[in-house]
Amino acid sequence: MSPTPEWVMVGGEGPESYKQHSSYQRDLLKAAKDKINAVISTNLSLNLISNRFSVADFGCASGPNTFVAVQNIIDAVEEKYLRETGQNPDDNIEFQVLFNDLSNNDFNTLFQGLPSGRRYYSAAIPGSFFDRVLPKHSIHIGVMNYAFQFTSKIPKGISDRNSPLWNRDMHCTGFNNKVKKAYLDQFSLDSKNILDARAEELVPEGLMLLLGSCLRDGIKMSETYRGIVLDLIGASLNDLAQQGVIEKDKVESFNITLYIAEEGELRQIIEENGKFTIEAFEDIIQPNGESLDPKILAVSLKSAFGGILSAHFGAEAMMKAFELVEAKAHQEFSRLQNAKPTMQYLIVLRKN
Amino acid sequence: MSPTPEWVMVGGEGPESYKQHSSYQRDLLKAAKDKINAVISTNLSLNLISNRFSVADFGCASGPNTFVAVQNIIDAVEEKYLRETGQNPDDNIEFQVLFNDLSNNDFNTLFQGLPSGRRYYSAAIPGSFFDRVLPKHSIHIGVMNYAFQFTSKIPKGISDRNSPLWNRDMHCTGFNNKVKKAYLDQFSLDSKNILDARAEELVPEGLMLLLGSCLRDGIKMSETYRGIVLDLIGASLNDLAQQGVIEKDKVESFNITLYIAEEGELRQIIEENGKFTIEAFEDIIQPNGESLDPKILAVSLKSAFGGILSAHFGAEAMMKAFELVEAKAHQEFSRLQNAKPTMQYLIVLRKN
Repeated sequence: MSPTPEWVMVGGEGPESYKQHSSYQRDLLKAAKDKINAVISTNLSLNLISNRFSVADFGCASGPNTFVAVQNIIDAVEEKYLRETGQNPDDNIEFQVLFNDLSNNDFNTLFQGLPSGRRYYSAAIPGSFFDRVLPKHSIHIGVMNYAFQFTSKIPKGISDRNSPLWNRDMHCTGFNNKVKKAYLDQFSLDSKNILDARAEELVPEGLMLLLGSCLRDGIKMSETYRGIVLDLIGASLNDLAQQGVIEKDKVESFNITLYIAEEGELRQIIEENGKFTIEAFEDIIQPNGESLDPKILAVSLKSAFGGILSAHFGAEAMMKAFELVEAKAHQEFSRLQNAKPTMQYLIVLRKN
Repeated sequence: MSPTPEWVMVGGEGPESYKQHSSYQRDLLKAAKDKINAVISTNLSLNLISNRFSVADFGCASGPNTFVAVQNIIDAVEEKYLRETGQNPDDNIEFQVLFNDLSNNDFNTLFQGLPSGRRYYSAAIPGSFFDRVLPKHSIHIGVMNYAFQFTSKIPKGISDRNSPLWNRDMHCTGFNNKVKKAYLDQFSLDSKNILDARAEELVPEGLMLLLGSCLRDGIKMSETYRGIVLDLIGASLNDLAQQGVIEKDKVESFNITLYIAEEGELRQIIEENGKFTIEAFEDIIQPNGESLDPKILAVSLKSAFGGILSAHFGAEAMMKAFELVEAKAHQEFSRLQNAKPTMQYLIVLRKN
């Protein structure tokens, strides 16, 4: 979840920590469980399931969603093994789970939260998932939960007022073609690095599961719920600059390393990379949807974006910004309600 | 270094942290480098060095000694490979280092301290090394640096005033036969669990390197420098109880999970376990010896024992105890100077 240092999620277990407010992703993971079961049943070669089976979560943050994600995968592997061999997986398979995130991720909290009844060996793997972080052929299934949508850096020129690529908004809204192209180019490069690295780390025929958000082709980010929300944060920062609370220059140069790609862009990147075959590209229907309660919205946004805003503008300005976001969410309630949906995808890639 | 929760070393990088004051062990590791080179050259099967080579440090604490220890091993493996194959190890071998300690060890600090020029993939492995912490046959060389001398718990009866095994001292001085037997029994049991676990985790013919302190046969712990030092801590705690600063009961029931075995005891435990062959049992001559400066002594003891004393008696009493230790070390200078030496061993075990 935290590809660049500033994106490290709020650690610990406090009321505003990532751990307490990643419930939307947790709900999605529950919804994804049946799909994961089905795709592993269909796509995982039985001969890959031997006495040791390694699962890696790239961008795991400090928990607890990663525990749900990897357990879903292990359950699916065990079910397939039991069904197809008639043997008890407990007797024959040792699972190992590799939790990867940046070296400044809060792995201490991750380890404190490890489920007590787990039936796997655990390891924390420090390092950026844009690079290699594991030896060759050392994992059977890799997963990225809402981590494949980050870029490794702000595209060149985007934060520079004097550049033709300067982005007045804090994210890629989709309404500026030059900005969109710069973000897409960066995202394509980063995604290819991720795929190249994972292709080396996975055993032959190993699977990569990507869970995340994408746009249906032709939809613009700022037409969606999440795009509108990011625009509300941007507008709040502009208000604070108007009030003299933060510097105008800082707001104008503030951009985030998030790029919610279109479905077609994702397919094209994976196909052009050529290291994997797309075995499934499914839409996970999330039963509860996003919360529209402005209070809940502001708190959950703070847990996801508070860290990066604090780093740029200071903790006090960050708190003020989220007060404004809450008020704006009240005003924009009907716009949020009528936003175009994003797609929550589960992509299953098999290493060629 | 921290087999039980109370033994977790002082984390972080403060002036009294384990990281800053583990210099004695660092010096020992330097002295051990040549020996490690020689024993790996002699005892490691060349056919074990393939494209992936995994080294695990069991009881790694939060650094930096573990980095020196594992680098010594990697250097030795690379040298052997280059010498015997004529090929560049950089082109052919991917090293992976597995840093193991209890799940409440400060792995965040460990990761922050990872050497920037390292040529290995890193992983933190949470869990007690008295149990299995890794999949079967997943490592080629394991190492324990001054961690093999801990027991998993205080032997039964030792802390109980009403037991015939009650130990008036805070450690196993060697002068009470019943206490000595209780500690040795516990140590034997724990050591066998360690050897059983490592025998499963190592590949066939894999090596286990044990670095630590032992007594020459017939020498009693309290005749050695370290034993005297522990007695000074015990005496300081008694003084504080006399002064009413801490409770007498607490001092009388205070024991540590350290057992410095005799050389013969170590050999017997390993041979009776039967999972490993002793390929080498060497004495590492430490050029600088232990520091006799009472100030340095008190500070370095605090970094090693401060945590456990704080847990039992509170931070304030711990600080007072070490002030007394410093004063007592002045008084006992000639006794410390004339203490019988302990042996700093490097044991090389090959999995049968």
